[in-house]
Parts: sequence; C-alpha cells; structure tokens
Amino acid sequence: MILTLTPNPALDLTYLVDDVRPWEEHRVREVYEAPGGKGVNVARVLAQLGVDGLCGGLLGGAPGEQIRALLTEEGIAQRWTPITGNTRRTVTAIADRGATGFNEPGPAVTAEELTALRSDLTDALSRRHPRIDAVTISGSLPPGADGAFLADLVRLVRDQGRPVLVDTSGPALMSAARAGASVLKPNADEAIAATGAATPLEAAIALTEHGVPLVICSLGADGMLGIQRAGDRVRAWHARLPAPVSGNPTGAGDSVVAVLASTLLIGDSDLPHALRRAVAVGASAVTRPVAGQIDIVLADGWEPHILIEEIECH
Amino acid sequence: MILTLTPNPALDLTYLVDDVRPWEEHRVREVYEAPGGKGVNVARVLAQLGVDGLCGGLLGGAPGEQIRALLTEEGIAQRWTPITGNTRRTVTAIADRGATGFNEPGPAVTAEELTALRSDLTDALSRRHPRIDAVTISGSLPPGADGAFLADLVRLVRDQGRPVLVDTSGPALMSAARAGASVLKPNADEAIAATGAATPLEAAIALTEHGVPLVICSLGADGMLGIQRAGDRVRAWHARLPAPVSGNPTGAGDSVVAVLASTLLIGDSDLPHALRRAVAVGASAVTRPVAGQIDIVLADGWEPHILIEEIECH
Repeated sequence: MILTLTPNPALDLTYLVDDVRPWEEHRVREVYEAPGGKGVNVARVLAQLGVDGLCGGLLGGAPGEQIRALLTEEGIAQRWTPITGNTRRTVTAIADRGATGFNEPGPAVTAEELTALRSDLTDALSRRHPRIDAVTISGSLPPGADGAFLADLVRLVRDQGRPVLVDTSGPALMSAARAGASVLKPNADEAIAATGAATPLEAAIALTEHGVPLVICSLGADGMLGIQRAGDRVRAWHARLPAPVSGNPTGAGDSVVAVLASTLLIGDSDLPHALRRAVAVGASAVTRPVAGQIDIVLADGWEPHILIEEIECH
Repeated sequence: MILTLTPNPALDLTYLVDDVRPWEEHRVREVYEAPGGKGVNVARVLAQLGVDGLCGGLLGGAPGEQIRALLTEEGIAQRWTPITGNTRRTVTAIADRGATGFNEPGPAVTAEELTALRSDLTDALSRRHPRIDAVTISGSLPPGADGAFLADLVRLVRDQGRPVLVDTSGPALMSAARAGASVLKPNADEAIAATGAATPLEAAIALTEHGVPLVICSLGADGMLGIQRAGDRVRAWHARLPAPVSGNPTGAGDSVVAVLASTLLIGDSDLPHALRRAVAVGASAVTRPVAGQIDIVLADGWEPHILIEEIECH
C-alpha cells in the first residue's frame, strides 16, 4: 500500500456560471464538490490504477469533514492527522470563456499538530497491516510548516527503509532533495526556481547532486525528463507523446506521481518504462475534465507510441 | 419568543482579495464564514435587540451543519427541519473596488420535507415552553417549494392565533398577501413587481387590499412607507433619515424586519413609532460591514431625529 501524504489538502468547489463579471452577482448553475489537494488526487489515481492507496496528512474543520466523507464515498482509505484549523477550500467558477479561481489560504498549523503528524507517520510505517510499502508527499505546506518539517518527514520514511517520492516546489523542494528523497517530481519551472540552473535538464541533474537517485521533471505538453544517478554516473531520458493533447492539465501531474510511485517505488520498472507509462497516463488525465481522473483505455493505447530517447549528459 | 423561519438559508463565505480578474487565479487573503439567509439575519438582530428568537426552516448537508455550529457559537436558539439536500453557500470576493458574488442554487426539497416543516411548525406553535408569540418568514423559497407552500405556512400560523410577518418577493409575495399575512415587508421594486402598480405607495396599498392590515415598503436611502388598513380606512406614513448614510445595505432589510416583528407583532407600538425605530435601526445596519449586525447606540441616537409624515391616501 502507498501512503499519499497531503500536508495541505483542499475541498474543491466548482461552480458552473454563464460568465464572470467583476463587481456583480452571479447565479451559480451547478455546483460540484470534490476532495482535492495534490496527494488526494494521487490516491484517487492509484485507485484507478488498481493500486491500494492510503490518504494521510493534516485535516480539520467542516471542509475537512467534507473531504473525509467524499473520499469515503469513493472507497479511498484514509488516516488523517486532525488539526483545529479549517482545511482550505478552492472555488473555481467555470464559464465557456475560462476558469476563475479563488484559493483560500491554508490553515495555520501548530507545532503540536506537526508532531502528531510525524508520530502518526511513524505509527503507520511500523504497522504490519496495512503494510505501507512507499510514501508520496505532495503539494504545498500549510502556514506553520516549512522545509525543515518536510525534511523530517522524508528522513523518517527513509529511516524506516521505505522509498519516498516528493512533489513540491520552492525552498521545500531543495529541503526534500537534501533530506534524501528517493524520487523528486518537480515541473520545469519549479526545478529551475529551486536550483537556479539555466535549463530543465541542468536543474533536474542539479537536484540529483544532493543524493537523490531519481528526478522526473515534467515539461507540460513536451513530456518529461527522467534523470537517474548512481554515484557519479548520470543517465537522462526524454519521453513525450508523438502529438499534443488538449484539455484540462489540472491534476495531470498528480496522475504522473501515482504512476511513478506504483512503477518505481513499489514496482521493478526501469526508468524508461516508468516514463513511458507516466507520459501516457498523464496525457489521458489531460483529456478528463476533472482533476484526479484518468482514462486507462486511452493510456494503454498511447503507451506503445510514446517517443523516448536517451540524452547525453556532460 | 419570535420564530424566524428561513426556508432557504445560506452559509455566507466572504473572501478578501486584492482584485477580481476574470479567467485568473486569486489568492484569498482572509476568509470569513457566517450563517446567512434573511431569516437567520433577523434572528441575529433580534438577539442584539434583546428579544428571544428561534431559527427555523430547512437545513441540510455539510454547509447546514456549519450554519448550525456558527449559530450555536452565537448563542442563537435553533429548531431546523432537516433535508437531504445541501443548504446553499454564497461566496463574495471583496476588494477595494467592490464585491463580486457567486450564489449557489438552493437545494431541491421534497414534498415530504415540506410536510415535515409544516408539522414542525405546528408542533412549535403548540408548545408552551418555549412559547412562540409571533413568526417571521423571510427570503426566497428553495426549488420544490412555491407560493402555495408559503401560503400554507401563513395560514397555519394564523390558525394558531399568532401574527406572521412575511418578507419575500415574486409570486410568493402575493400568495402571502392572499393567505392573510399580518405584516408584509417588500421593498419598492418587489411591491411594484408583485402588484403591477405604478408607484411604491400604490403598490403597498394594493397589497393591503387582500386583507393584510400592515404593509411596510422599504425605499432604500429614502426610508420607508408604512400602510395601515382597517376595513376601508387606509392610512399611510413616510419615515426617513434627515440625511443619508453610506455603507453596506446587505442585511439592513432584515434588521428592519426584526424591529417590525418586535414592535408590531409582539409589542404594542403604533405604526409611526415602529417606522421610526425601523428606519433608525436599518440605517445603523448600513454602517456595519457585516450583514446581521446593527449599532444600537447609533440607532438610539438617530431615532428622535427620524422625519415622519402622514401621506394622504385616495
């Protein structure tokens, strides 16, 4: 079972409206509620891939209870660490012309709540049933948690002998690299911002220099880079679709994390195979209007046609 | 005790933002949650006036539970009729330039749920403790409830010998008039739309022709009209502030309803005195940024200065 940690989950509200006009009232035609946050999406994609996931992280307040109820309805296992603050909501008003989003700030979390999360993680990793084979940590950190806390979580998982994939950005990304994450999955902008490198390839290689054996860097419509380091030996691949797909990219990165976790952390795939599968599943997620959903039939059809080439590294 | 019925309450979310730009993402700086819906505001103002109120109506889902918890925190008594649908939310993004609102549709209610509300109302009116002395019914009806249902509620209260004030709009306003409401409180646009009359005065008088003894018609910054009918005898007054106040008029009409209910339904005020008090309290509500709040000190100071004149009726 893969434990998908979401430090800062969200209740996602989607409003269908005719238009968005500032300083006016809008009648909402339809309302959709979904459990959200990057790690929650990873767990939902794992379920679609037939892999057991367990949602963990920090959850609180009435929006938190709604997330719990919605995930229960979807049959997704959960073991949240409770907080007194309110888990944030996102409101997205969708009209034909586009989407307008309002993102609540995350709840301020206390040192005691962060200690409780560490303790719950240790407890989960020590149980035999269900056995946690790997951990993913996805998304932003709520106010009160910083890169040092993320590094603690990474070390805690590694000390228990399990692999951990981290998908985050900003200073926390470098903290995860230094703490010994097994896999990092930034996008190109995030990798460049964290390292100061000039290109996505250089940035991804730089992230491996702190001891991370695998860095997968997503390039949007241009597919993704995969970097593998063993000692001084670095190999890199670029995988992409033969033709771009259009749709809603929200959540596509989370579906990529689900594939990487199930192929690289608990499977025995080599990196080129994992990249092929990740590009195919990620592209299928783009075709689905809702974050956290993939199209397995499409992904299976595309996978043999994914273009992959090894890149020479200096 | 005054029972304030809200058939279609709302959880009001207020977001402070820097600006509103269509088709972009917005970072919410601060989030405020408040129990909302017109009758809920009436109960909150009654509490500030020192009058016991009891919130009733249809409540369901996670937003409904949040409303219940927020009202409990405020010390407001509640006796809701549960529904399986989700009570609606409103989201208002406020920036320096103005407010942008998104209003969810109300939940579809079933015939059984409407029967349960009628039954709960009968039960509440038959109890000695707490004794319900009067009833207000405020705001829109959710999908599934219509003017005939509102008329049922009005007759049910009148049959139990209690007065009932109705603050609604559209066809339901005329249904309440025909069913024998004790007091109606439309605004000018609502009264004109319901009656087809040419002026607010003619519209308010037309509403009394169905047997309603008191109609109070709010005119925004121009104060309010009060019409009193006994048989064929009609008297009318116009009350207003000596100078306009600026601020947030949302909820000011609900504070007026609270004053009218506490002076005309359960008190022994004459109409001119009730109008004076209603104009003063309503204006104080405009000065408060949050709906459902009034400023008693301001209202007490303004009340002696309210201008009131009797209007000749033809």
